[in-house]
Amino acid sequence: MKQILAEILTIGDEILYGQITDTNSQWISSELDQLGIKVVRKTTVGDTEEAILGAFAEAEARADMVLITGGLGPTNDDLTMPMLAQYFDSEIVMNESVLTHVKHFFESRGRTFTELNKRQALAPKAAEVLHNELGTAPGTWYEKNGKVFVSMPGVPHEMKNLMKTLVLPKLASFFQTPVIYHKLIKTVGIGESFLADKIKDWEESLPEHISLAYLPSVGQVKLRLTAIGDNREHLKKDVQELIDELMPLAGSYIYGYDNTTLEEAVGQLLKAKGKTIALAESCSGGYVQHKITTIAGSSEYFQGGVVPYHNNHKVNLLGVKPATLEVHGAVSEACVKEMAEGARKLFNADIGASSSGIAGPGGGSEEKPVGTVWIAFADGKETITKKLQLTQNRLLNIELTQISVLNLVRKSLSR
Amino acid sequence: MKQILAEILTIGDEILYGQITDTNSQWISSELDQLGIKVVRKTTVGDTEEAILGAFAEAEARADMVLITGGLGPTNDDLTMPMLAQYFDSEIVMNESVLTHVKHFFESRGRTFTELNKRQALAPKAAEVLHNELGTAPGTWYEKNGKVFVSMPGVPHEMKNLMKTLVLPKLASFFQTPVIYHKLIKTVGIGESFLADKIKDWEESLPEHISLAYLPSVGQVKLRLTAIGDNREHLKKDVQELIDELMPLAGSYIYGYDNTTLEEAVGQLLKAKGKTIALAESCSGGYVQHKITTIAGSSEYFQGGVVPYHNNHKVNLLGVKPATLEVHGAVSEACVKEMAEGARKLFNADIGASSSGIAGPGGGSEEKPVGTVWIAFADGKETITKKLQLTQNRLLNIELTQISVLNLVRKSLSR
Repeated sequence: MKQILAEILTIGDEILYGQITDTNSQWISSELDQLGIKVVRKTTVGDTEEAILGAFAEAEARADMVLITGGLGPTNDDLTMPMLAQYFDSEIVMNESVLTHVKHFFESRGRTFTELNKRQALAPKAAEVLHNELGTAPGTWYEKNGKVFVSMPGVPHEMKNLMKTLVLPKLASFFQTPVIYHKLIKTVGIGESFLADKIKDWEESLPEHISLAYLPSVGQVKLRLTAIGDNREHLKKDVQELIDELMPLAGSYIYGYDNTTLEEAVGQLLKAKGKTIALAESCSGGYVQHKITTIAGSSEYFQGGVVPYHNNHKVNLLGVKPATLEVHGAVSEACVKEMAEGARKLFNADIGASSSGIAGPGGGSEEKPVGTVWIAFADGKETITKKLQLTQNRLLNIELTQISVLNLVRKSLSR
Repeated sequence: MKQILAEILTIGDEILYGQITDTNSQWISSELDQLGIKVVRKTTVGDTEEAILGAFAEAEARADMVLITGGLGPTNDDLTMPMLAQYFDSEIVMNESVLTHVKHFFESRGRTFTELNKRQALAPKAAEVLHNELGTAPGTWYEKNGKVFVSMPGVPHEMKNLMKTLVLPKLASFFQTPVIYHKLIKTVGIGESFLADKIKDWEESLPEHISLAYLPSVGQVKLRLTAIGDNREHLKKDVQELIDELMPLAGSYIYGYDNTTLEEAVGQLLKAKGKTIALAESCSGGYVQHKITTIAGSSEYFQGGVVPYHNNHKVNLLGVKPATLEVHGAVSEACVKEMAEGARKLFNADIGASSSGIAGPGGGSEEKPVGTVWIAFADGKETITKKLQLTQNRLLNIELTQISVLNLVRKSLSR
């Protein structure tokens, strides 16, 4: 099968001058990659006629499709539409359906619809207009000698919506790309190389049409399975069978799939078990509670928490024994144990979880260097603790502690 | 003065396929912009000889300098160095000083130095080698007909260090760019257009050699003053005079300069006043405490805080009156007032601050729609409250509440 090639062209002085980061082209690349389309070049040019027309011609010579973002505003420095009209030797006409949409878009938001806004409804006659339901600048689609040009707005959520609903399906059909099915498997609590070692045999036995990628981030590793074929339901079944085989090898590290976050997975688990939780965070400074409360509906299982940054609050609020602090210090197994148990009681919750550690850069000693962190989980029957030896970097230590606390709760609840 | 033009060339399949985001080129753009150098094109190509050589020639034809990142690893798919050697018709030789550095780099980290690693010390004879103290792949510098090519590693912190310490000074000297001095003025609590309106006369009176840019982000607006001349100390003085003139117009919104964050500014203010703080966060769910504790040394002024997500904890822990909740509800001026006062007392702090609101997407009513948030500041003498009417987006509401609480503390302390 001939490889289908794409180029991505971004238009706008604001990107050249470093005023904004172009996140669109990475997103587009990764979507095209999932369709089996190979991006061979990305280019950003400024708002000048010569640069834009030159970039069109160069891209057309190299690729089967050119995906363009940006330069679609209504002002005179927005040149994408007139340059496309010139390139495809086509006049620019008013598109009545876009005009109605743009007018409604402004009026429904209580904004005045001006003559300038009207220009958003202009498009080259040669183009098929792609309706942009989230904004005012439409997408346009051009075909020429078996090649395709697509122009899209630069506003990320508008571009993504247009791509997902219209452009990707049209590209898949025009270029008759195979069916591709992806599944993200999300793991926590194990490093990339250890995970790879655990699932080596499984990975080696993957069938020809299914490939695996490791996508590591701070404290987590995502596995992406990509299946290529001609029937989505068959691919889905094949991937599910592989996940079933993976479970005995790495199931305890897997907290969810696709867009599920760790805090969401922990929330679902708490809901499913009908349990409530309370936190006592010293080292993580409220970050676990912030993560938990980013999830809509978290009030169903999150009772509350404290950040007892000074030791006397660990004693007064959570009932940590002064003797524990004297003998073992605040960064100790004994202390996080009493903190987790204290949080449970203080908030009348089923579960308590806690952290205490030396985030750095100061506060370290030979016995307890920067990066020493203790965390705990208590459910009234049992208290589970864990010691972490993290990094020299304060922000990274806070982030890793937050992930470790959530993971300790997840693992303890999943027993 | 002739405008100096630059192109940025990024090399690597992993960027084309969307596996990583290229943040380097935005950073480089913005640094060049500050030197008065205009970026006319950014290009990303994959790891193929033809694409790389083609991109070199195209960029040289258009620009005065070509800044290249990526493709410098020691494996066979890393082609930047051999392609540069071919382009500048130069043989590749072992650089002894780089070899010593790379060997030391591996050995000092307890890693084995292999034959493959040795290849990191190879560079074209035509190049001036730029020492990369943070990594193993060196930068290289080429001059040809008054134009400059620079190759740098793709690892962001290595590239940035190389740019700041060697590349930017060399470019400034080679192209005799003027001296440029920047100052970021950071504001909070006022929208871009309102701020612009307040400082209109000041902005219009800026001298020719100083320009102003508005850089808005969530809840904040940065003002960037850029002064161009031939003496850094004079420029610094000119900018300071302008800031002095700005203070009576917008001083109350300015919390800091350059890299200072809002949580850092609030921390400095608390330290300067010798005051400690405690938080009671319902709507912001611990996010203010997380922000405060990201700052090293925050234990000096941060006593601790609670997240009383359920109403009974507002009563039990903070002493909010049951009647207050019954009559006014948790999202009310009366409730955040009692929460802030309660946090002060519970943690024995000088200052208490609080939030309570409807982050969404559920929980709204006609009287209190999603996005309704109350915040408060209490110092024992006085309690200051503020009502916010935010958005429909949960995460944005949490972020804006966090910023507003910190800003309320800042403003109240600055009285």
